[in-house]
Amino acid sequence: MSKQVTVEILNIGDELLLGIRTNSHLTYLGKQLSLLGLKIDHCQVVPDKAEAINAAFAIAAKRSDVVIATGGLGPTEDDLTRESLAKLLGRKLIYNESIFDTIKDRFLKLGRNVSEVHKKQCYQIEGSQILKNDRGTAPGLLVKQELCTIILLPGPSHELIPMFEKQVIPYFKINSFAQEDNAYIQLRTCGIGESSVEEMVAPIVKQYGFAELAFCVHLGIVDVRISLADKTKNADQLKQVAEVCRLALGDHFVGYGDITLSQVIYHKLRHHQKTLAVAESCTGGLLGNAFTDIPGASKVFQGGVICYANEVKISQVGVPEEIIDQHGAVSGECAIAMASGVAENLSSDYGLSITGFAGPEGGNEDNPIGTIHIGFHSSFGIWGKRVRYLGGRMDVKARAVNAALDWMRRLLIGQEQTDIEEQNI
Amino acid sequence: MSKQVTVEILNIGDELLLGIRTNSHLTYLGKQLSLLGLKIDHCQVVPDKAEAINAAFAIAAKRSDVVIATGGLGPTEDDLTRESLAKLLGRKLIYNESIFDTIKDRFLKLGRNVSEVHKKQCYQIEGSQILKNDRGTAPGLLVKQELCTIILLPGPSHELIPMFEKQVIPYFKINSFAQEDNAYIQLRTCGIGESSVEEMVAPIVKQYGFAELAFCVHLGIVDVRISLADKTKNADQLKQVAEVCRLALGDHFVGYGDITLSQVIYHKLRHHQKTLAVAESCTGGLLGNAFTDIPGASKVFQGGVICYANEVKISQVGVPEEIIDQHGAVSGECAIAMASGVAENLSSDYGLSITGFAGPEGGNEDNPIGTIHIGFHSSFGIWGKRVRYLGGRMDVKARAVNAALDWMRRLLIGQEQTDIEEQNI
Repeated sequence: MSKQVTVEILNIGDELLLGIRTNSHLTYLGKQLSLLGLKIDHCQVVPDKAEAINAAFAIAAKRSDVVIATGGLGPTEDDLTRESLAKLLGRKLIYNESIFDTIKDRFLKLGRNVSEVHKKQCYQIEGSQILKNDRGTAPGLLVKQELCTIILLPGPSHELIPMFEKQVIPYFKINSFAQEDNAYIQLRTCGIGESSVEEMVAPIVKQYGFAELAFCVHLGIVDVRISLADKTKNADQLKQVAEVCRLALGDHFVGYGDITLSQVIYHKLRHHQKTLAVAESCTGGLLGNAFTDIPGASKVFQGGVICYANEVKISQVGVPEEIIDQHGAVSGECAIAMASGVAENLSSDYGLSITGFAGPEGGNEDNPIGTIHIGFHSSFGIWGKRVRYLGGRMDVKARAVNAALDWMRRLLIGQEQTDIEEQNI
Repeated sequence: MSKQVTVEILNIGDELLLGIRTNSHLTYLGKQLSLLGLKIDHCQVVPDKAEAINAAFAIAAKRSDVVIATGGLGPTEDDLTRESLAKLLGRKLIYNESIFDTIKDRFLKLGRNVSEVHKKQCYQIEGSQILKNDRGTAPGLLVKQELCTIILLPGPSHELIPMFEKQVIPYFKINSFAQEDNAYIQLRTCGIGESSVEEMVAPIVKQYGFAELAFCVHLGIVDVRISLADKTKNADQLKQVAEVCRLALGDHFVGYGDITLSQVIYHKLRHHQKTLAVAESCTGGLLGNAFTDIPGASKVFQGGVICYANEVKISQVGVPEEIIDQHGAVSGECAIAMASGVAENLSSDYGLSITGFAGPEGGNEDNPIGTIHIGFHSSFGIWGKRVRYLGGRMDVKARAVNAALDWMRRLLIGQEQTDIEEQNI
């Protein structure tokens, strides 16, 4: 690459401007392009109107090397992307029978008949290249005009994503728009503030001299992206910096990339052939859900009890009534009783529990709104931990789940280290 | 309003273009502006670079009546919105001591010291109006330039939302940018396809002749927005059309606005002073979470059991082993046993259950991947219902939860009607 390629995204669709749908395409493409070492310089979101689409294409094609447009390729009347671009470029739309055949084949397999309305999708812009759609009817198009490459992708995510990954990324690499290796390495951390993470990794990155840092914070998680500032260095050298940072982060390091806290625990438990059960009050199912989002979770996750009412804490996970009377349902004692009780009742090796006041009501002097108690039960000990979060109900719930998962992850790491040390005695 | 006001959104921030954060501001503002009868005509997303922000403001101010910019008002070096706009308009930035005093007061309450870096936020554009920030340090600004009104809002959602609702919306109404009444009425439906909803409501809307329809589909829910096409008609007349549509939709109608299925059930149960417990397998906590998202849920929701492993189905909600042997854990029989068992064990009036294959593995000939069985237990009967969804694991889980909630909602409505009829005998 002689110079930085400028990229522009054009999202087409009324629903994005009416607040009906969130612009997830921009987020997806932003992330993918970052990994390719490309930056989005502009993004325009426009309604399904020919003049608006025309104007946006005209601005984009003038200032950007690559324009990626999403949406408006469907068969209905308000799908205008193809037509608008053809008009702007002064090119014809040419009917392509092979596109129609592909749609017909697809419908045949689904037991449906293709209708005349789909013929609209069979027109391609003169001189364009077709991007096959394995998951839907509208093919994508790739058009070169002077110095600009324009890529049209369909709106539905399950069509756009495979098309981008299987056809557009390889095109970018072959045509040297993008580099072969990932442009950054992401280290995920939890249980530590952004500034502390920065203090740990910034001196390392500075010492190597050829990498740069970016941070992203979400619900108690801090992601660190390390990328090459000096393009003469290679991916192996970047990996080396990342590895040194990982070591410096110690137990704060969760994993590379987008791995979740529950996935890390899942892998550890599978490795040791152990099982887990959860008991949760204020998070009301969200902790269990973090595990059941993992395909094959049943190999590790036995299940859980959402013990929202105090009677359920007593009857289903065996919390002694005296504990609730003496310490309250939001207490370390109750959290530990929940963790131990659910592990016993569900015959699992580990028990993890959450009880707290998620708000906006509840709380008391000792445990104001936002107070969360986490309990952990294992063969190597039982623990209770107290945390507090400010924020709305949803936010407190999500942070409480991350705190519980991160804490269990750390306790498992601690025990693994103890096991190793004991073996060495 | 003599003519339609054109609105443009300018979202400023690298994180939106790097795929780190989704542009939720556009979705929020799109929805709010739609309710006000305003449409967003353009949206630009630009990085934290002075030239990019300048260029975007220049384009926007030229073509739009109202420009709402978000982000870049903070105290750090890459917050450039205020400076860029002042430069473009050829106006000075004036230090305003009262902004600093407000920040100082805020920090005092939080027990923190204000630092010099916050002085950057105390500059306002010459001739601008300050929008107070109750939740953070950066005030918003409102600037009028020739025919364009430019509004600068802070990036954090918990600061932006109250500022928009308490200060910007009233400004729009006073200055006749927006109408007094909501521009549309939303009817939420569930358990029925978009085309069927359209068949039911379109003839009604057509007959009245002054309203128009828009649809939004998400996870089994179809939202219908009815708005005035003829601006000489008023809000009461729109309400009347909506009410006729509601009656035509019958039990498919969930509620007005954004009410959730679990909220509808919650209100019904509170009204009848009844309680609920849930038992869920493949949805793994998501069903319980739908209830615990509601503040004060404990008045109705007893709790639940995430009976992921078969042993947990047997031990915790009393599913007879024979049912699992004979019919399998994914069966109507098992779903009903789960619903009845959890209601009994958790001493609740109603029991709702889900068991199924969320994929990507599992399933058999009778119950392929995506098959969901829902069970319901009540004093007026027990039911099992089978549905099937194609899609990824997350999608199947979310749809299964909506299906279970919608089905319980319908059964409750049916029973309410039976009760009324019995009273009339």
